Amino acid sequence: MQADSGKRYRNECTGNALNTVKMHAKEQDLTLFGSCFCPFVQRVWASFEYLEIPYKYYEVDPYKKPKDLLEVSPKGLVPGLKLNNFNPPKALNESTVILEYINDLAVNSTGRSLLPPATNPYALALVRLQCDHVNRSLIPSFYRYLQAQDQDVQINAGKEFHESIESLIELLERSENEVALAVGLGLWITKNEDLGLVDVMAGPWLYRATIVLKHYRGFELPHGEKFDRWVNKVFYHPNFKSTCNTDDLYLDSYERYAFNRPNTSQVANAVNSGRGLP
Amino acid sequence: MQADSGKRYRNECTGNALNTVKMHAKEQDLTLFGSCFCPFVQRVWASFEYLEIPYKYYEVDPYKKPKDLLEVSPKGLVPGLKLNNFNPPKALNESTVILEYINDLAVNSTGRSLLPPATNPYALALVRLQCDHVNRSLIPSFYRYLQAQDQDVQINAGKEFHESIESLIELLERSENEVALAVGLGLWITKNEDLGLVDVMAGPWLYRATIVLKHYRGFELPHGEKFDRWVNKVFYHPNFKSTCNTDDLYLDSYERYAFNRPNTSQVANAVNSGRGLP
Repeated sequence: MQADSGKRYRNECTGNALNTVKMHAKEQDLTLFGSCFCPFVQRVWASFEYLEIPYKYYEVDPYKKPKDLLEVSPKGLVPGLKLNNFNPPKALNESTVILEYINDLAVNSTGRSLLPPATNPYALALVRLQCDHVNRSLIPSFYRYLQAQDQDVQINAGKEFHESIESLIELLERSENEVALAVGLGLWITKNEDLGLVDVMAGPWLYRATIVLKHYRGFELPHGEKFDRWVNKVFYHPNFKSTCNTDDLYLDSYERYAFNRPNTSQVANAVNSGRGLP
Repeated sequence: MQADSGKRYRNECTGNALNTVKMHAKEQDLTLFGSCFCPFVQRVWASFEYLEIPYKYYEVDPYKKPKDLLEVSPKGLVPGLKLNNFNPPKALNESTVILEYINDLAVNSTGRSLLPPATNPYALALVRLQCDHVNRSLIPSFYRYLQAQDQDVQINAGKEFHESIESLIELLERSENEVALAVGLGLWITKNEDLGLVDVMAGPWLYRATIVLKHYRGFELPHGEKFDRWVNKVFYHPNFKSTCNTDDLYLDSYERYAFNRPNTSQVANAVNSGRGLP
């Protein structure tokens, strides 16, 4: 493996994501505080696109903790959401909380949703099981793998990340077997043209895995007919794609994780000290 | 501090909880797989009582991993929920997932709910922020405190647990200031006679703190007019109280955590190895 070349994280979007930023520069009721490389932000951003809710995208540097970010997100983490339609404005943080919030807004306005209908609580519960697995297993194992420095630690962490993807596949299969087929939905509960909550919850890390983990750790996603179909659906879905930057942005921004530089981020520190993600 | 007296965890309810078990021994569409001492189970159990959904309580020993438990909960963790009204029966695990599921059922049947109405997405989001904090900060810090052996580690862990409670209080205050007052709700978003999602999410650990952490670590809950009022509302709410055992059951069952005996549980192992809770 090459040596740490000291690349800095980026603070301006590129490629498709930059085009989307330009189309969302106007003031709106909702302002998304984001950082171009951040997967937690991409969850929310792709959902805004899919749910067709008007929003302004506002790029911030979460490592400099600007005052306006701290006002909407107490730990200075992105994403943050500012709700300008209240007087005084209100705010929300935590990607999972923001996701549920904008989905609730959409259900009440555009009629779009990332979730199965409320009339099918079991289908909803299976999606929540998948999302719980993503948050508590897939994401921590992504960072442990990327930050591992010793070769044997890397090998174990790579195995764990693979196992976590396999467990996600099992949960997705379960949705298909127990629910999707019965109610005429598509692959793993969402129709092929739709995005579901687990798609936006997991997609940003799987996408970065194909660029960053591939480059720094030689990682390859597992293959399988349905999994390939699902991954391609997510990666090439217009509302996901429109929030993706060019590969070089991710490679540059994640070099500091790959060499586990001190004080890379709150996430990196939490992983190094064996604490849950902030 | 006294030496480890080698007490075993219990596997039969006592006190109010035992009376409730006896009233829920009949077959029903839903079977709750529970263990008398388990706070993750109590979350769901108190909610069943509050939501007025018929259920059967079924005591299992999660450390012996009986086959019928593994069928509803793949890691052999409680709570598990068996859905006998499907053919073949379906199952759910993870306390947070089961909670949302039975709340969805209640909204569609008894009309009761642990959540603010869907027409108030911001109030809902604030509750989700509170619950996220409970799951990712309050609960891990409870176990770190209880399992810490060296005195200086105990002191730091105790501080962290206190800080986590203070952060929860801030989030509850925020709900009152930003939402509850405006829409005429009671203390911290729930009316005084109601239980809310954060009440059942946090209550079981705060309750155990007043018995187990008090006994083994000399812990006292912080005091404050509103916090005291809230804690008393939760602890003395009939639907919470009816799922509480006598103090001796908790003291016995948690001795192995307090002395950090090897292989106490999957939760204890995760805390010892710096991993997220299973």
